[in-house]
Amino acid sequence: MNSLENIVSLCKRRGFIFPGSDVYGGMAGTWDYGPLGIMLKKKIMDAWWGYFVEQRDNMYGVDAAIIMNPKTWVASGHTATFADPLVECKECKSRFRADKIADGISESVTTEQFLATHTKCPVCGKENWGPIRKFNMMFKTHVGAVDDDSSIAYLRPETAQGIFTNYKNVIDTIYPNLPFGIAQQGKAFRNEISPRDFILRDRECTQMEIEYFVHPDTWQENFEKLLSENHHFLEKIMGLSKDKLHDYEVPADDRAHYSKRTVDFMFDYPNGQEELMGLAYRTDFDLANIERESGKSMEYRDKVTGETFIPHVIEPSIGVERLFLAILSNSYIEEEIDGNKRIVLKLPENLAPHKFCVSPLLKNKPELVAKAKEVYDQLRIKYTYVTWDDSGNIGKRYRKQDEIGTPKCIVVDFDTLEDNTVTVRDRDTTKQIRVDIADL
Amino acid sequence: MNSLENIVSLCKRRGFIFPGSDVYGGMAGTWDYGPLGIMLKKKIMDAWWGYFVEQRDNMYGVDAAIIMNPKTWVASGHTATFADPLVECKECKSRFRADKIADGISESVTTEQFLATHTKCPVCGKENWGPIRKFNMMFKTHVGAVDDDSSIAYLRPETAQGIFTNYKNVIDTIYPNLPFGIAQQGKAFRNEISPRDFILRDRECTQMEIEYFVHPDTWQENFEKLLSENHHFLEKIMGLSKDKLHDYEVPADDRAHYSKRTVDFMFDYPNGQEELMGLAYRTDFDLANIERESGKSMEYRDKVTGETFIPHVIEPSIGVERLFLAILSNSYIEEEIDGNKRIVLKLPENLAPHKFCVSPLLKNKPELVAKAKEVYDQLRIKYTYVTWDDSGNIGKRYRKQDEIGTPKCIVVDFDTLEDNTVTVRDRDTTKQIRVDIADL
Ligand SMILES: [Zn+2]
Ligand SMILES: [Zn+2]
Repeated sequence: MNSLENIVSLCKRRGFIFPGSDVYGGMAGTWDYGPLGIMLKKKIMDAWWGYFVEQRDNMYGVDAAIIMNPKTWVASGHTATFADPLVECKECKSRFRADKIADGISESVTTEQFLATHTKCPVCGKENWGPIRKFNMMFKTHVGAVDDDSSIAYLRPETAQGIFTNYKNVIDTIYPNLPFGIAQQGKAFRNEISPRDFILRDRECTQMEIEYFVHPDTWQENFEKLLSENHHFLEKIMGLSKDKLHDYEVPADDRAHYSKRTVDFMFDYPNGQEELMGLAYRTDFDLANIERESGKSMEYRDKVTGETFIPHVIEPSIGVERLFLAILSNSYIEEEIDGNKRIVLKLPENLAPHKFCVSPLLKNKPELVAKAKEVYDQLRIKYTYVTWDDSGNIGKRYRKQDEIGTPKCIVVDFDTLEDNTVTVRDRDTTKQIRVDIADL
Repeated sequence: MNSLENIVSLCKRRGFIFPGSDVYGGMAGTWDYGPLGIMLKKKIMDAWWGYFVEQRDNMYGVDAAIIMNPKTWVASGHTATFADPLVECKECKSRFRADKIADGISESVTTEQFLATHTKCPVCGKENWGPIRKFNMMFKTHVGAVDDDSSIAYLRPETAQGIFTNYKNVIDTIYPNLPFGIAQQGKAFRNEISPRDFILRDRECTQMEIEYFVHPDTWQENFEKLLSENHHFLEKIMGLSKDKLHDYEVPADDRAHYSKRTVDFMFDYPNGQEELMGLAYRTDFDLANIERESGKSMEYRDKVTGETFIPHVIEPSIGVERLFLAILSNSYIEEEIDGNKRIVLKLPENLAPHKFCVSPLLKNKPELVAKAKEVYDQLRIKYTYVTWDDSGNIGKRYRKQDEIGTPKCIVVDFDTLEDNTVTVRDRDTTKQIRVDIADL
């Protein structure tokens, strides 16, 4: 079954993802990508950057610092409202997110509403609660040699503000016409009170965001365009099944007050439906905030009409970890083929860490090993993503390559020495064919 | 002159690097990459990853979390010794790095030594100092809902420990033979008391590090190999002039106590010689520290001989920012050609943000614009890194493309409409030739 536990186990066993600081007993809410994980992660990120930035004429990249001027978070509202409802058990001093331990309440729960749920402490079982207080999820630090209020700074809780604060820089150096977008990939940090669900709710994540600047009159057509392009990216390039992806039109009551339309892309994860990405029409909310807080004009002047206005913004935002887990969930399959059980990652070819695995049938036959090395070297020059495997027996190697999603296994055997053909085994069908080395 | 000021100015003017949080008056020691900067940065990082990881059979990548278990920094010694000598003026309360305001003293200066220099306060001019105290340069934060000593964590001050803590994970999932390396690219943070020198001494930097694990008997040959491979990378792939690069054999007194050999690669930056990268033989120092602090064995067992030991480590370590600035310094040239002054970035072709720039000679002639668009579209499919420029006049466009290092400018003029040839102008020589569109 493709339960979350099985995927976590595969990730650790095969070197996709390890618990962070594992050797020291871990660090809650952090995860480390291993050798195969970083290969998959890079392919995801490069594909996104290629499709949304490099292949377009009106997209510009930035890479902003993680520690930003604290005014950023005053302007964006994070200082005031990026908070979870925290409640403390007076008996055992344990602290919890109120909305996670009580049923049917939201993040904006009041102390009265929470007490009315008569929730018992998950640790000591008593019911003796302090008041709900708002716990800001930004990680706080001090910058410079003085440790007082004047030196407080935060790790960015989103990459979006690193884009908005560079809008003016891009306008002043590139002079782009509307519509244009600024894209960024980078780390964001949230001090989750109780991180959980593997990489779905971690304390560090890598975001991929675009702020797409448009004339206010054209937001609807640009929104539709980005909606369909993101579907294309997720389905055709990331290979996610159409039937596991659901557009959720966020109703007006649940949208941010300034947004006229928000679509959440929901994905059927093993543990249930969860948000994979969001597409939000943000009007001029962010640029107007920056204009107010910085005192600098965020206006754009149309080169032809001379019209002057603050552009409106549409924001596609996706977390690499959520996408990574969606891809694994989508491709993780346990099946029986010819009476043999196997686990296989049916990753799209463009994402598989290795395209080919080359093996000698037997590792103690030098002539097979030498021939296999020759095939390996030849493919390696052409494709980069080729791996070598001479561990255990051939059946064990297939099981391993299936689990890490390698589309084709190439085996050099005694026939190869005679006729220069090799066995090519297909990951998905497990069917084997003979292929001439020259045709690989 | 390729002074640091001129390079900083070019970076801002053309969208390579902006001061961090610029719109809010900045954030000392942070810098944001703009559209051209992120293109160059990605090319640098991808080239390093390609050369040192993807093209090798014994190199594995990891991508560890930035917030690590605090035991990491106890084991590595950072908690105790990653500190600068801080001194406070009792008159005006200004704080300084003692070794930066007094001449001829080192980072390990004592209060007595500092007072003996009779340094005056750079702010108020008085000489009334408090004692030297050690200021730890790790950024501190709190993780989770409780704000006490138990929740203290740090932003990693180096990426190396994210590798060492995953050594055991890599061994247990990949079973590599010695020698093998683990590589990582990622952010590291240092709370510099007085950040300065543009991106040379910033508070956030991107490191590229390899820990190369070897049998203790073979460290010398592996050291030599890495030394020459790093020279190859810097000179042949990054294009740095051999005569600006200097190997500095760090003498025993200045090396870490455990290191038997360290070579600093010094580069002639506009402001003087500075360390560009380091190559250090670290023995089993780091793995032994982890073994002691974690209580887990870091031993490696040779599959053939059965010999069991802690591998020794050779560490090549380079900061992307230092390399980025070395590349800009190396290619920034102010010269006079045919009586015209120009600034040109003679970037190697593999690093230039754009390979080609396509322009119509005149932007108000629709037939020229249409033809130029055709050429642009054709090249864009083939090369990705092609830019379009129809701003100002042709001379202004050349000046701009020279400043951003575009090797070839292709101009469509009236002759093109007749004979399908275009003008191709070379960045370095400024010479122009006619080329058939089909031969581009
Ligand atoms: Zn309790
Ligand atoms: Zn003073």
